[in-house]
Amino acid sequence: MTSAAGIGLDIGATKTLGVLTDELGQVRAEVRIPTRPGADGVLGTAVDVVTDLRARTRSQLWPVGIGIPGLVDVELGAVRHAVNLDLDGTSLPLAAELESRLGLPVLVENDVNAASIGATSLLSPGARRDLAYISIGTGFAAGLVLDGHLRRGAHGAAGEIGHIPVDPEGPLCACGLRGCLETVASGSALAAAWPGTDDVPAAVAVFEAAGAGDEQAIAVRDRFAAAVAAGVRLLCLTVDVETVVIGGGVTQVGEPLRHAVARALRAQAESSGFLGSLGLAERIRLVPTDYPVAAIGAALLGRPA
Amino acid sequence: MTSAAGIGLDIGATKTLGVLTDELGQVRAEVRIPTRPGADGVLGTAVDVVTDLRARTRSQLWPVGIGIPGLVDVELGAVRHAVNLDLDGTSLPLAAELESRLGLPVLVENDVNAASIGATSLLSPGARRDLAYISIGTGFAAGLVLDGHLRRGAHGAAGEIGHIPVDPEGPLCACGLRGCLETVASGSALAAAWPGTDDVPAAVAVFEAAGAGDEQAIAVRDRFAAAVAAGVRLLCLTVDVETVVIGGGVTQVGEPLRHAVARALRAQAESSGFLGSLGLAERIRLVPTDYPVAAIGAALLGRPA
Repeated sequence: MTSAAGIGLDIGATKTLGVLTDELGQVRAEVRIPTRPGADGVLGTAVDVVTDLRARTRSQLWPVGIGIPGLVDVELGAVRHAVNLDLDGTSLPLAAELESRLGLPVLVENDVNAASIGATSLLSPGARRDLAYISIGTGFAAGLVLDGHLRRGAHGAAGEIGHIPVDPEGPLCACGLRGCLETVASGSALAAAWPGTDDVPAAVAVFEAAGAGDEQAIAVRDRFAAAVAAGVRLLCLTVDVETVVIGGGVTQVGEPLRHAVARALRAQAESSGFLGSLGLAERIRLVPTDYPVAAIGAALLGRPA
Repeated sequence: MTSAAGIGLDIGATKTLGVLTDELGQVRAEVRIPTRPGADGVLGTAVDVVTDLRARTRSQLWPVGIGIPGLVDVELGAVRHAVNLDLDGTSLPLAAELESRLGLPVLVENDVNAASIGATSLLSPGARRDLAYISIGTGFAAGLVLDGHLRRGAHGAAGEIGHIPVDPEGPLCACGLRGCLETVASGSALAAAWPGTDDVPAAVAVFEAAGAGDEQAIAVRDRFAAAVAAGVRLLCLTVDVETVVIGGGVTQVGEPLRHAVARALRAQAESSGFLGSLGLAERIRLVPTDYPVAAIGAALLGRPA
């Protein structure tokens, strides 16, 4: 009972998910409540989740970790441009505010970066030091754990591969460029091409229809899978990670998603011996459905080395 | 006179360039002789260069470093697929052969990776730990020094960004894919669009003609510069290095090359506030003409930590 434990939160637009983990990132308890809007709402929600989780353990806690969308200043523990959380335009000193309310040290990280660290817990100990994580949700972004360290980059822009143009004739991206990977490889691009229903998310709907033989759905699915594969290929030809873990809302599709992306990677490699030799299709893994990868990663942020 | 020194070789298809450097990578002596073809030719040339350089110093030598094109097995000190050196199809145990002939320990590295390490010597001490190096010669490839360490990747493919497709309608690449960066951003692509003469290399010729107002040359130059800029952008959106050093034969052009690439980066950022905020045009540096960047990097391979 004297072992240490960590608390990590994944603060999203609709819900805040918190976990209590051990030193290996194994989840001991999980809490999930709706995120209240605005700065006070976000802070209050986070306090509620941490309070709930810390009551469940007698272990010594290392610093609480927070994963949150937007531009995070890790040194200051502050977040900006978290548009979906109604925090746009202001910088929220999340760490300082939570520390004063909780009486616990707090670390803040961008949610995709936190999930990249969480993704290491899915791999064997030997494979954990080096991976890319691709988050496919509303957008398309990656996080990198290289040689055991999270790669944030000189300006916090490491992994922003969703805004790399891959087609001069492609659709205009929200970022202002044309043909960005995100215009095809994101969940919102998929939903625009094949809207879901209230009950069935777009990605699940299109993969089900494609699996049932609908030709239009097959075309939408394969175009999406090829763009995700292009993202995997781009990461492997730039940093050459052994493993690319795919997460985000789109992974609700499950194994058919991994199959489609692997098929696209094999098809792309057919014409290129060089690409074929790299075995990209065998490098991809999916985050299991309902695995709280960003919250686990947030919990691991403060784990003692 | 008791300070240590290093010897580094850049073995190219036409010449082998060797340098003797101090611990800061400052060149103390330089030797340049034609590379003799085939395995025996390459080995004999390397032995001649090292023998010449070691006679010029009384300092204690750390291990000799070799930069060579092709697939290098760093552990074995062996090279494969060095097509331009007539070594194709065979694996040459370069380190073992040179060690037995020289009686000195030898390290072998891919030439672009060696040049990436050499490029650190161009930067201020604070900037040296993190950079990308882009080699624009016959091909287009990058090397990465991240957080003070050369990034080779899980399969030695880190930095192979020349084979990332950026245009589905682009030209077929030698690698078998279509629209790879290398089909536009390489010296050979430039030479195909605007052949040079015996006296003036293609890159110099097209930049001179463009500078003189030739509209066709301007179009060729700007298309090339935009593709190089796309490579810079890709690296900054993936690993977000603070500095991107451009080297290779094309840098004979000098400052007009840097201006053209910076202009292309600014033009691409005009439509994107996100990209504009990253200041990519200010991140690029050129290797000065005749600066033996790969040989210096090779010399630094074995420098004691």
